[in-house]
Parts: sequence; C-alpha cells; structure tokens
Amino acid sequence: MSSSVSPLAPKNVPDMPAIAGVRLATAEAGIRYKNRTDVLLALLDPGTAVAGVFTTSKCPSAPVEWCRAKLKGGKARALVVNSGNANAFTGKTGRASTALTAKIAAKAVGCSESEIFLASTGVIGEPLDATKFDGVLGRLAESAAPADWLSAAKAIMTTDTFPKVATATVKLGKAKVTINGMAKGAGMIAPDMATMLSFIFTDAPIAPAALQALLKSGVEDTFNAVTIDGDTSTSDTLLAFATGAAAEHGAPKISRASDPRLKAFTKAFHQVLANLAEQVARDGEGARKLVEITVEGAKTKASARRIAMSIANSPLVKTAIAGEDANWGRVVMAVGKAGEPADRDKLSISFNGIRVAKSGARDPSYDEAQVSEAMKAPEIAIKVSLGLGKGRDRVLTCDLTKEYVAINGDYRS
Amino acid sequence: MSSSVSPLAPKNVPDMPAIAGVRLATAEAGIRYKNRTDVLLALLDPGTAVAGVFTTSKCPSAPVEWCRAKLKGGKARALVVNSGNANAFTGKTGRASTALTAKIAAKAVGCSESEIFLASTGVIGEPLDATKFDGVLGRLAESAAPADWLSAAKAIMTTDTFPKVATATVKLGKAKVTINGMAKGAGMIAPDMATMLSFIFTDAPIAPAALQALLKSGVEDTFNAVTIDGDTSTSDTLLAFATGAAAEHGAPKISRASDPRLKAFTKAFHQVLANLAEQVARDGEGARKLVEITVEGAKTKASARRIAMSIANSPLVKTAIAGEDANWGRVVMAVGKAGEPADRDKLSISFNGIRVAKSGARDPSYDEAQVSEAMKAPEIAIKVSLGLGKGRDRVLTCDLTKEYVAINGDYRS
Repeated sequence: MSSSVSPLAPKNVPDMPAIAGVRLATAEAGIRYKNRTDVLLALLDPGTAVAGVFTTSKCPSAPVEWCRAKLKGGKARALVVNSGNANAFTGKTGRASTALTAKIAAKAVGCSESEIFLASTGVIGEPLDATKFDGVLGRLAESAAPADWLSAAKAIMTTDTFPKVATATVKLGKAKVTINGMAKGAGMIAPDMATMLSFIFTDAPIAPAALQALLKSGVEDTFNAVTIDGDTSTSDTLLAFATGAAAEHGAPKISRASDPRLKAFTKAFHQVLANLAEQVARDGEGARKLVEITVEGAKTKASARRIAMSIANSPLVKTAIAGEDANWGRVVMAVGKAGEPADRDKLSISFNGIRVAKSGARDPSYDEAQVSEAMKAPEIAIKVSLGLGKGRDRVLTCDLTKEYVAINGDYRS
Repeated sequence: MSSSVSPLAPKNVPDMPAIAGVRLATAEAGIRYKNRTDVLLALLDPGTAVAGVFTTSKCPSAPVEWCRAKLKGGKARALVVNSGNANAFTGKTGRASTALTAKIAAKAVGCSESEIFLASTGVIGEPLDATKFDGVLGRLAESAAPADWLSAAKAIMTTDTFPKVATATVKLGKAKVTINGMAKGAGMIAPDMATMLSFIFTDAPIAPAALQALLKSGVEDTFNAVTIDGDTSTSDTLLAFATGAAAEHGAPKISRASDPRLKAFTKAFHQVLANLAEQVARDGEGARKLVEITVEGAKTKASARRIAMSIANSPLVKTAIAGEDANWGRVVMAVGKAGEPADRDKLSISFNGIRVAKSGARDPSYDEAQVSEAMKAPEIAIKVSLGLGKGRDRVLTCDLTKEYVAINGDYRS
C-alpha cells in the first residue's frame, strides 16, 4: 500500500448503500502487513447465486482453482478475501491452505465448505498460514454488518493507493435493486481477467446461469479492456453474488440473461464493472496519466482490440506519454507490430482531439506547441483511424513512469 | 546517443580486419545530430551478392520497402545508412526521399539505382531531406577506404551508448575468408527482426540465394532471440553482403546454403550474428543487467521460445531484476500468461544456478541471502524447467530501469 494517493483517483467516493442479504466485516490477521486490515469476510444469505470469471493463466493460484471447482454448485454463503499473500505457486501446501481456510469459514458461518468462495492477493510463492484465520473468521461472522463497503474495499488492497467502490440502483420489474462493487488492482493487470480481484453484489434475484452470462459479457469491454503492464496475474478473480433479497419486495426472479426485464439491470451492471475497471487504470502503479486508446476503422472489433492493446502495452508509447510527448511515431510502431491489417497510407492519429498524422504522414496543419500543451492533461485520449472497415474498440491504460519501476523494483523486499 | 556508456559494454573491442571488396566512409550530414557522424557509405565491388531480413511490421519504413524490392536482383554496389531520421511514416515524401537518395548514391558510385541499399534510423514521422546527401555521397565515394569499421559502426548509432562490431575469420575450402558485422540497437527491439539495423560483410563467394538462406536461419536464435522492450521497429533491417573477392585466392563459389564446404563458415557467421545480438541486449536502453532466460522441458522449442519471451518481456520480471530481487513468483506469472502448456506442479526455477522453486513451490533448501547476493551480478541467468518435454530455447534481454523511462520519456524532445 503506497503512502501517496494516485493523482488520478476519483474526486468523489460514492455513498455505498446496504444490500439486503450481504453483511461485511474486516480484520487485521497480520498475514503480511502491519497495522492495517487484511481480511474481508462477506456473509451472504442462504440462496445467494454466484458467478465468476478468472485468470487465463496456466499457473493459477490455489484460491482460483478452489473457486472454479465450487462455482459448479452455483450457491454461495460467504466470501473470504485476504491481502498480502496470493497463495499462488505454493504447491500442495497451497491447496491444503485453501481447504483449511474454507473449513474454518464454513464452521464460522454454519454452511457447507462448497459454499465458501476464496480470493487471495499479494506475494506469490510464500506459503499462506491459514491457521491465522482461526478465531478471526468466527469473530468476523459475529460482527458482520451491512454497512461499511469502503472498509471492505480497503482490506483487499495491496499496492493500490485508494479503495475502489462503485454502486448503481435500478428498477427490476417494479422493484428497486442495488448493485455494489469493489475492486483492487494496481499492477500485474492485463486482459483475460484484467483485475486481480473484484467482487460485485446485488439483491436482484438472478439465477446462477443468468448471472454467469451477465458477468461474462460484462467483462469484455470493461475489465478485459484494461491493461497496466501487460502482465496477467495468477490470481485474477471477479465474482458476482446475487442474494435475491429484492424478490421480497416484488423483483421478478430472472433465470435467463436474455430476459427483457433485465435490460436496465444489465446496463447498470455493466456501468459498475466499467467504473471499477476505470478506477483500476487510474490506480496503475506509478500512473500519472489515464490513457484511453480508441481504434476505429479496423477490419473487425477483435482486430481493433488487438491493435489498441498493442499500443496500450507498448513501453515506448507509455514512456512517451509519461514524458508528455505526443510521439505518434511510436503509435505507428505499435500499430505495425500488432500484426493486424493496417495500411500505413490510410492511417490517422490524434491526441486529445488534435490530429497529428493523416494519410500515412504528419498532418501538415499540426501545431507542435498546441499538442505539447494538450499532453500536459492528466487524461490522454489517443485515437487511431485505420480507414479499412467498421471495427472499433477502446481500451484503458496508464503511462509508464519511473515510479512504476521503483514500486516494482522493491515490492517483495 | 547517451553520454555514459552502458556498464554491460564488452570490455574489449576486436580489431576489425579489412574485407576485400568493401570500402567504408562516414560523414556529418547534419540530418539531426550536431557534431557527430550520421551517414555511412559502404562501397561494394561489382558482383557482390546481397541478402536481407526485415521487420514484420505492417507499417514498415520507406527504406525497408525499398530494400525488399531491390533484394530481388540479388546484387549490391553500395549501402547508405543514415542515423537521426528513420524516414518512416513519411508517406509519399518518404518514398520520394528514398528514390532521391538512391539516385544520388548511384551517381556517386557509378551503378544502377537497383544496386543501392538503404537504411535509416531515428525519429519516425519527420520528413527526411535527401538533398542533404547531395555532394556528401560523392565525396564519401571518393574517400572510401577498407579500414575503419568502428567509425562506420559509430555513424549508425542513435541512443546506443557504444558501437557494436564483431568479426570472425574462417576457412572456406582452403582459403581464409573474413566476416565482419556491425549493429545498432538500444530500444524498440523485439523479435521478428530484432535489431533495428545490422550489416554483415564477407569476402566469401556466396550466391544471393545461399546467403539469404544462411541469414534467415542465422537470425532465428540470435537477433530474433533478443528483446529489450517487446516493441518492434518499423525499420528493423539486417543485410548481408558477400563480395566474393576470396575466390581470387581459391575460395570455392557456393551456390547452396546446404553445401558441406560451408559448414565452418556457417558456424562463424552465426557466431558473428550472436555476438552482435548480445551486444544489442548489453546496450538495452537504461540496462544495468544482461539477462539470459533459458526454458527447458517445454513441449517444443517454439513453446519454449514463447514462454522465454513472455518472461523476457514482462515489465514485472524486468523491474524485479533491476531491483536485484529474485522474484520467482513473477517468473511463474509470466510462464502462466504465455498461454503455452505448463504444469505448475512440475515447474522449477533457478537464478544464476541457485534453484529457488521446484515442483510448483518454493525450494525448501533455498537461502534468500545467497540468492540476494547472486542477484547483484551484472549478468543474470534465469532457468525455467517445465518438466513436460524436450523443447528448449534461450533468449536475451535486460532489466527495466528508471533510466529506460528517462531515456524514452524525452527522446523526441
């Protein structure tokens, strides 16, 4: 956890309403950090549906493997998250550790171990001593309350400089339902589950399969469209929980994601995901600028995505932005290396609305002083027009600063 | 051009012998830099064979397009290289500029324009004023001499901190033949023609098709196995020239790369490429450590290469090395994100010969103090054993330091 908050942090933190069926509690278990909370317990009322998407890493963490297996049941009674230790690459010890954590949690909550969901974030390769949860989880289960979402978001932070929460309230049928989310990110952030950890909660009565479909389509243009350093964590986890409590005041039970009654909810759900994903980019390690890359005129949306990601992950583009240099030559380089269809002589590039290149060469009307001034802004929008087709996509990233190197040069020590 | 030489620069620069049929000259054309040479002319005797491999960028520079087209003729009389301006993404102006440069050079040399090969390196997107070559190339053609290879290597530098040359002498038949090479690199270095610019010269009588085959197989484990930042230049060019002058003292004329008489030559040729490629890694922008990544036990060599590259291009691995931290958890992460077959529970990792992880968990015998001491070395060897098959590969890279960010945050300005 850094001492100074990212200059890109949102100015306002939303009031997070309670969600019927969800109670939260945090504690200091002393797993790694001193004098800060590092365990979150979220208690979920019986009948809560669960859905999840995870890292595509071939070396996933023990908690990711645990959640994948338990997701088949579709029901959750509790989520246990710890920060400071990822319980990844910990071999048999890691599996034993997740099993023990689930056992302790199930006893504290009074449910089956298969209804316990786990996430861990922090150092990789260090054994996680799950006995530290013994006692702690019991006390948390007793004290859990609907209120304090910000404390929950703080307890899951590692190198994050601010807690990330988002909320939306929307009509489902004639009932008001709420969606709350939290996330932690900062580094080792790349698509194929972009965030390290994010959790979404709603009181809407949505069946597991529908929730899963909603989540899967929701991440595509949100968490999967964010990259900080192109690195993919072994622990990336996004879980969604639907308690169904809103059914009591008339919300219809939803069994299919395509249900037309879900339209407004789906939109709000995506907004919460998009909001959290943007906060992850705003808290990229060492970030001083939020960078939005839009690629249009590509052959397909997938092609636009690959080109946008090639730009977003280019160290040379990212360092140029850190240096407030509208170095569009490096954008051309990144377009070229993406391996996607591109015609140099049709390419146009703009920075914050100022076109610097068109038809494969420098825009004759481009004023260096004007662009340099624009590059001082904390938010930089790069737009690339390929002129080949109708494929369009957008990704978010941040600049690459000396602070990124400093943070990651001595994170473990 | 940086003022301080990379601490990883080779301690000794080899004496570079003359190569019959090659004469060199350099000049200050004032293209971008002040008070330093920025143009190289290499004159080649009639009958010189040429081969080349280039960037796979979809937005190649004008000189790359020029060379690709002229390579079909198989013959070269001159190479013109300028530093300071890449003549890339310069549209029609760029094509006009290469044509004019070739015209001026052909006149100076007294040959066909199709026998002129061109390479440019430097800023992208700025028009290159080829009229600056007028007069300069004529004078260079008159003064060209066999001697000064180091001056030639200096004239093609941009952010390089030292000139890169290599040489080998070997028997072809009963005759002694020589291979000289030079390269420039530093940043925007990634496979699919890894170096920005490199030129190899030999007096061996090798036909264009054989030389091309030799070059293509030679780059695979040399220049294409080097990465600095994962970025691919629009200008990456490697050209090889064989004057054939050694035929006069009895070297056999070679028309096929598979000719058994070429065995020793092929080995020496690869050594020159490997030597230059390593120098490029040693001069990675801001580099303080040379990093060799070996992946063994993969399903195939190609799979080992992709995993090695995933490790080599991971900002988190590279910053950890800069911080002298044997953070093998990040190596696991990079193995996992490569998308190649990997079994966490069979994975072993060592740093400079010290095994830190085995069978999917921390090596119980691993001594943190010993590893920390080893990480202070200027050369770091990371070995990953997957335990799945016989695929093995090796790539070179460097660490990611604050200096990389500084160099690239204000390169253009």
